[in-house]
Amino acid sequence: MIKKIIAIDMDNVMADIETHLINSYERDFGIRVDRAAMQGIPESEAFPDKKAVWNYVLTPGFFRTVPVMDGAVEAVKKLSEKYEVYVVSAAMEFPQSLIEKHDWLQEHFPFISWKNIILCGDKSVIASDYLIDDHCKNLDFCKGVPLLFSASHNANITKHIRLNNWSEVLSYFSQKDS
Amino acid sequence: MIKKIIAIDMDNVMADIETHLINSYERDFGIRVDRAAMQGIPESEAFPDKKAVWNYVLTPGFFRTVPVMDGAVEAVKKLSEKYEVYVVSAAMEFPQSLIEKHDWLQEHFPFISWKNIILCGDKSVIASDYLIDDHCKNLDFCKGVPLLFSASHNANITKHIRLNNWSEVLSYFSQKDS
Repeated sequence: MIKKIIAIDMDNVMADIETHLINSYERDFGIRVDRAAMQGIPESEAFPDKKAVWNYVLTPGFFRTVPVMDGAVEAVKKLSEKYEVYVVSAAMEFPQSLIEKHDWLQEHFPFISWKNIILCGDKSVIASDYLIDDHCKNLDFCKGVPLLFSASHNANITKHIRLNNWSEVLSYFSQKDS
Repeated sequence: MIKKIIAIDMDNVMADIETHLINSYERDFGIRVDRAAMQGIPESEAFPDKKAVWNYVLTPGFFRTVPVMDGAVEAVKKLSEKYEVYVVSAAMEFPQSLIEKHDWLQEHFPFISWKNIILCGDKSVIASDYLIDDHCKNLDFCKGVPLLFSASHNANITKHIRLNNWSEVLSYFSQKDS
């Protein structure tokens, strides 16, 4: 039987970019931005210095050192048993991140084959059965079932099935199996 | 009207890897391998030192310095007028090539947006209407019309529509339009 394909975004889904930004900002500016104040606001607008996020994502090492999202490793491993899992990251906007994202995946998700990693720009040409992503710009145009992974910036989005964390992702797919 | 999508492979289609290998081998080993003797033979087997090709593709700078395939720039530019063109390269096997391929495209094909570049492993999840590629491992499993771009190594392949050069690619698509 051909396995169904789940495409999984990296930033704010596998990789906890939000926490990484909050920690980096506190380290560099001495201000810890409250996650409650980030709800429904684009990440780039959520910090007092409006250029900070843009500067961070262009900084060598930023993507290489991002913490793994809670529960992601175990959940992706479990999904890989029944599904063909592809990592699909819109990395091309930040070329310095290409090798960092590859190396980060090698370190934290070594069970994902290089054959199943896609670093791209626009994700609308990826033919998956599901896409787990935190951005409507990707989910609105995906070919499969769009699944919105919660992040502060998407708190007010009411489109798409929302999954708040990796535990809810596993729960969603376990219901598919039964 | 939504443009149809053409996915285009880089190595041996946009980038003349074969010539780059022949030139590199002559430079390093003093032997110029005859293209006629390479017909129907895997590239890695076509040179006296069987490890040479593998070493070259792992060498920093190799992909950054490959010559552009004859006629590719003008043809891709022309195709971009009527089609949505995506560059799709199985670069993930050679991680050091990721940034080199990005930079090479920026230099030689600056009119291709970062949104339309896909560096991946397996190409079977790319939903294009056409795939121009020199390898059956990609063409056999593609979702659109497979178009075999001629290279010495694929000389004996009889599957798929064969296009010998970029002039024939343009001719093929101009007939589609009429």
